[in-house]
Amino acid sequence: MAKSKFEYVKQFETEDRLLPNCWIVVRIDGKGFHRFSEQHNYIKPNDDRALDLMSKAAETVMEEFKDIVLGYGQSDEYSFVFKKSTNVYNRRASKLATNVVSLFASSFVYFWPRYFGTQMMQYPPAFDSRTVIYPTDKNLRDYLSWRQADCHINNLYNTCFWKLIQEKGLTPAQSQERLKGTMSSDKNELLYKEFEINYNNLSALHRKGTIIIRTPKQDQENGDLDILKLQLTPSGSSTARGGLSSRSPRPMTGGARRVGDVSAILMFTGI
Amino acid sequence: MAKSKFEYVKQFETEDRLLPNCWIVVRIDGKGFHRFSEQHNYIKPNDDRALDLMSKAAETVMEEFKDIVLGYGQSDEYSFVFKKSTNVYNRRASKLATNVVSLFASSFVYFWPRYFGTQMMQYPPAFDSRTVIYPTDKNLRDYLSWRQADCHINNLYNTCFWKLIQEKGLTPAQSQERLKGTMSSDKNELLYKEFEINYNNLSALHRKGTIIIRTPKQDQENGDLDILKLQLTPSGSSTARGGLSSRSPRPMTGGARRVGDVSAILMFTGI
Amino acid sequence: MAKSKFEYVKQFETEDRLLPNCWIVVRIDGKGFHRFSEQHNYIKPNDDRALDLMSKAAETVMEEFKDIVLGYGQSDEYSFVFKKSTNVYNRRASKLATNVVSLFASSFVYFWPRYFGTQMMQYPPAFDSRTVIYPTDKNLRDYLSWRQADCHINNLYNTCFWKLIQEKGLTPAQSQERLKGTMSSDKNELLYKEFEINYNNLSALHRKGTIIIRTPKQDQENGDLDILKLQLTPSGSSTARGGLSSRSPRPMTGGARRVGDVSAILMFTGI
Amino acid sequence: MAKSKFEYVKQFETEDRLLPNCWIVVRIDGKGFHRFSEQHNYIKPNDDRALDLMSKAAETVMEEFKDIVLGYGQSDEYSFVFKKSTNVYNRRASKLATNVVSLFASSFVYFWPRYFGTQMMQYPPAFDSRTVIYPTDKNLRDYLSWRQADCHINNLYNTCFWKLIQEKGLTPAQSQERLKGTMSSDKNELLYKEFEINYNNLSALHRKGTIIIRTPKQDQENGDLDILKLQLTPSGSSTARGGLSSRSPRPMTGGARRVGDVSAILMFTGI
Repeated sequence: MAKSKFEYVKQFETEDRLLPNCWIVVRIDGKGFHRFSEQHNYIKPNDDRALDLMSKAAETVMEEFKDIVLGYGQSDEYSFVFKKSTNVYNRRASKLATNVVSLFASSFVYFWPRYFGTQMMQYPPAFDSRTVIYPTDKNLRDYLSWRQADCHINNLYNTCFWKLIQEKGLTPAQSQERLKGTMSSDKNELLYKEFEINYNNLSALHRKGTIIIRTPKQDQENGDLDILKLQLTPSGSSTARGGLSSRSPRPMTGGARRVGDVSAILMFTGI
Repeated sequence: MAKSKFEYVKQFETEDRLLPNCWIVVRIDGKGFHRFSEQHNYIKPNDDRALDLMSKAAETVMEEFKDIVLGYGQSDEYSFVFKKSTNVYNRRASKLATNVVSLFASSFVYFWPRYFGTQMMQYPPAFDSRTVIYPTDKNLRDYLSWRQADCHINNLYNTCFWKLIQEKGLTPAQSQERLKGTMSSDKNELLYKEFEINYNNLSALHRKGTIIIRTPKQDQENGDLDILKLQLTPSGSSTARGGLSSRSPRPMTGGARRVGDVSAILMFTGI
Repeated sequence: MAKSKFEYVKQFETEDRLLPNCWIVVRIDGKGFHRFSEQHNYIKPNDDRALDLMSKAAETVMEEFKDIVLGYGQSDEYSFVFKKSTNVYNRRASKLATNVVSLFASSFVYFWPRYFGTQMMQYPPAFDSRTVIYPTDKNLRDYLSWRQADCHINNLYNTCFWKLIQEKGLTPAQSQERLKGTMSSDKNELLYKEFEINYNNLSALHRKGTIIIRTPKQDQENGDLDILKLQLTPSGSSTARGGLSSRSPRPMTGGARRVGDVSAILMFTGI
Repeated sequence: MAKSKFEYVKQFETEDRLLPNCWIVVRIDGKGFHRFSEQHNYIKPNDDRALDLMSKAAETVMEEFKDIVLGYGQSDEYSFVFKKSTNVYNRRASKLATNVVSLFASSFVYFWPRYFGTQMMQYPPAFDSRTVIYPTDKNLRDYLSWRQADCHINNLYNTCFWKLIQEKGLTPAQSQERLKGTMSSDKNELLYKEFEINYNNLSALHRKGTIIIRTPKQDQENGDLDILKLQLTPSGSSTARGGLSSRSPRPMTGGARRVGDVSAILMFTGI
C-alpha cells in the first residue's frame, strides 16, 4: 500500500516547543464541575473527599513526571510546575498539556472509589489544560500567589454563602443578594457576628489550597529524585497533611502535601 | 487581598486559535500502551475488548462534542474530525486537544469494567493529543487514508508476527528476524502458505479500523444532529458493527460504528 | 574561541512555518504616511507619482519573488499573493514578511527620484508587513474584495473631503463636519450636485486600486514564468495601465498593471 | 458597498505577541550580500564605507525605536535589543521585525551616497529579520557573545583568505584550499609568519564589530532617553568611534558607537 503517498499530511502539524530556560506551568481545570459536584452530592462549601481525590490524581501525575517540582491545587483545578531545564517531550506544549491532563483525568476516575466509597460516579468528567511559561522566579511566585488569592477569595465567599443557606435558611438567590457588594472585611465580620466563626481558624487546606512538593532524598525509598533542583526539608508543621501512605496502596515516595502560603514555601525552597 | 497585584501573570498566556475554514483533527494516542497491553494481558495481535473500549470512549467524546463529524480509530489511537465551521472553544487548539483527551481518558477508565469484566485495571493510563488542521477535503481524506494505511501495515505485520510465535513457537526475536525486510506481498504469502490464511478474509475491523459517524436525523430519538453537515444513511453492510445499544446504558443516538475504506465512506458523505 | 559554548542561544528561535496548501498573502503598509505625505507635498486626494512609485516597488518585489502570482495596491499599502504550493523560505512567515517588506522599502527609496524628480526625500520611511493565509479561493477573493472595498470607501470620502477644501474653501475641520454621517449615496450626490462630478467617471486607478499580474509566456522575453498557475491574457481594456517600459530602465517582463474589480480579474484567471 | 461582507477575512490573522518580561532581539541580515558586495566593489575583507553605512542605518532605527537599548553589528547583519519591559506594538513579533527591517533597508539606500559618493547603487537590496526572546541577562549576553564569536571567526578567516589572494597571488580556490582544516592558532600564525601581521593589532571594529549604545542624559540635547534602563557613561576609550556628527546632517543624540567585548560592555551597563 502506497503509504508514502499520504504521508505528506504530517507536514500540516506545527511545532509548539516552549521557550527554553523558563518555568513551565501546566494548569488543569475541571470542565462543568458545578454540575458534576451537584450530581455527586459534594458537601458544600468544601468536600474533603473530592479535594483528596484531586490531590491523589495530582500525586499520580507527579510520580510519572519527575521534572514537576511542585503542584498547587484548589477547588477543581491543579497547577504543575516543571523545572526550567526540563526537556520532557522536547518541551512541546501540546504533549505536556495533554499527557498531564489525561493522566490526571484517568486517575480521577481510577481512584474515585477510594474516596467516595460506594457512591458511584455517574459519568466520566473532562478537564481542560493549558501551558504557560514564566521567565523569572518572581513571575512564577506571582502566578502561584494569583491562584492562592483566587482560592482565598472564593472560599471566603463560599463559606458565607453556604452558612447563610445551611444555617439561616436563605435560598441561594437570597444568600447571593445578601453578599452582593461586600468586601472581605464585611464577610469576615458576617462570619464572626452571625456564626461566631473566626475565618482564620477554619481549615488551612480550604483557605489556602494544597501544595505538593517532593520530600528530600534521605527520606525516600528510591533515589530517583536527586536530579531535582527543588528539595524541601519537611518541617513538623501542624498544617502538613500527612498520612497518605495509610490509605494508599502505592505510597508516593518523594511527595508531601502541605498547606500554607505558596510564597513562603517557595522562598524556603529557593525559588 | 490584593488580587490585582498578581493578575498580570495572565498576560503570559498565549492565544492558539486555529485558522478558520479548515477541518480540525484531534488525534489521541495511548502513552506506553505496549507496556499497558502486556500488563493487562491483551489478546494478540488484536484484543476486541480493548478495541471496543476505545470506541466506547470515542463515542463518549462524540456525544459531548456535537461538532465532531467523524471518528477514526485503530490500535491505541483515535482521530476526531471537527467540522470546518466549528467554533467550539473559539477554535483554541489547547482547549480542543485537552478536553477531548481528558474525556477520552476518563471514559476509558470509566467503561473498563464493561469490557474487561472482573479483570482489574492495574494503573490509570495516559494519552497524548494533538490538533492538526487541513484546508481541503482532499487533505482530510489523505489524512484518514494515512492513518488507515498505518493500520493496515501494522496489522499485517502483527498478524504474521504473532502467528509465528503462537503457532510456530518462534520467540519474538526470531519472529522479528523472520519478517525483516519482507514486503506486503511476502507477508500475504507467508500467511497463506504457512497458515492457510487469506489476509483479506480476516476481520475488517482489524484490517481497516473503526469509523464512527452519525446516523441521519430520522433515525434519532433526539434531534440535535440536524446542524451537522455530514450525515450518512446506514447501509445494511455486513461490516457494520451495530448492537451498541444492547450493551450500553446510555445508548448513543446519532452514532454508528463502521469499517471500510475511509475514502469511500467520506466520498459517500460528501467530503 | 569557544563558539559552541554560546551556540545554544539558537534554540530560543521558534519555527513559524505556514500551513501548507493555503494562499499566502503578505500585506505591507506604510508607517506614519499621513505625516510622510504631508512632508513630501503629496497631491490630494491622490498623488499619481506616489501611486506609481508604490507600484514600481511592488513590481521589484514580484520580479524577485516569482511565486507571487498577484499584487494589489491602494494608498500606502500593497498585498502580495503567493501561490498555494510555494515553498519559498520553507514557508516561514517571518522570512516571507521581512524579505518582501525590506525589498519594498529599499525599492521605494531607490526609485523615488524617478517619480519625484528633484523633490528630495526628507527621511527614509518604514513599512510594516504581515502574513495571512487563506485556505480557499473564495477566502482569497474575499480578502482582495475587502481591500478593494476599503480603497473605494476611502477614495470616495477623500475625493469629497478635498473638493470641499480645494474648491469651496472649507477648513479640514469644516469639511470633516460636512461629511459626518453621510452615506455613499450622499457623497455621490454631493459630488454631482456641487461639483458636477460623476464619481464613476473618475480615474479607475484611484477608485479601484492597482492589480499587478504576470503577462502570459508568449509575450515574455524570458521564460521563467511558465511555472505559474495564474496567467492572464492581457485584454485591450481601456483601464489597463500600460507603458511601463517607456519609463523603466529595467522593463518588467511578465508583469502588467491593471485596474478593475479584483473578483472579476481573479475569476478570469481561474482563482 | 458591503464592506462588512468581506471583513470576516481579518479573522484569519493570528496573534504573535511575545512573552512578557523577556529581552527581545531583532536581528536583520542582508540577503544575497555576497553578490551585492561584489557588484558594488566592496573592499575585501572589510569595507569601512559599508560598515559605516550599516551602522548609520542602525542608528536611524535606534532613533525611531527608543526602547532599543543596544545595537550590535558585524558584516551584513545587525542585532537590536529591546528592553524587557517594552510594549512597542504590543510586543507583536511581526510588527517589530518588519518595522525595524524596513526602516533599516530604506535607510541603507537613503544614506548610501553619503558613504559611497558617486558610486551608484546598482539595485535595491533586501534584508531578512527575525525576533528572538531571551528570558535572562545571561542568555542575552550569550546571544551577543555568539554573534561576536561569529564576527571573530569569520574575520580571522577572511583576513587570511584575502591576504593570500591579494598579496600572494592565490586564486580564491587555492586560498580556500590553503585554509581548509586550519585552527584559529594556525591562522594567527599564518598571518604573523607570512605577512608579519599580529591579528590582535588589526582594527578592533573589524575583529569585534560595532556596539551602539545610548549616551547618558546630561550629554543630550533632548531629554527623551531618561526612560531607558540602560545608560552608559562614555569613557575616553581609544576604541570608541566618534565623529558621527561631523558628517551627519541629523546628529544622533543619545547614541555612541563603540567596539569591545560585548560582555564587558554589558556588564558595565548592568545587564
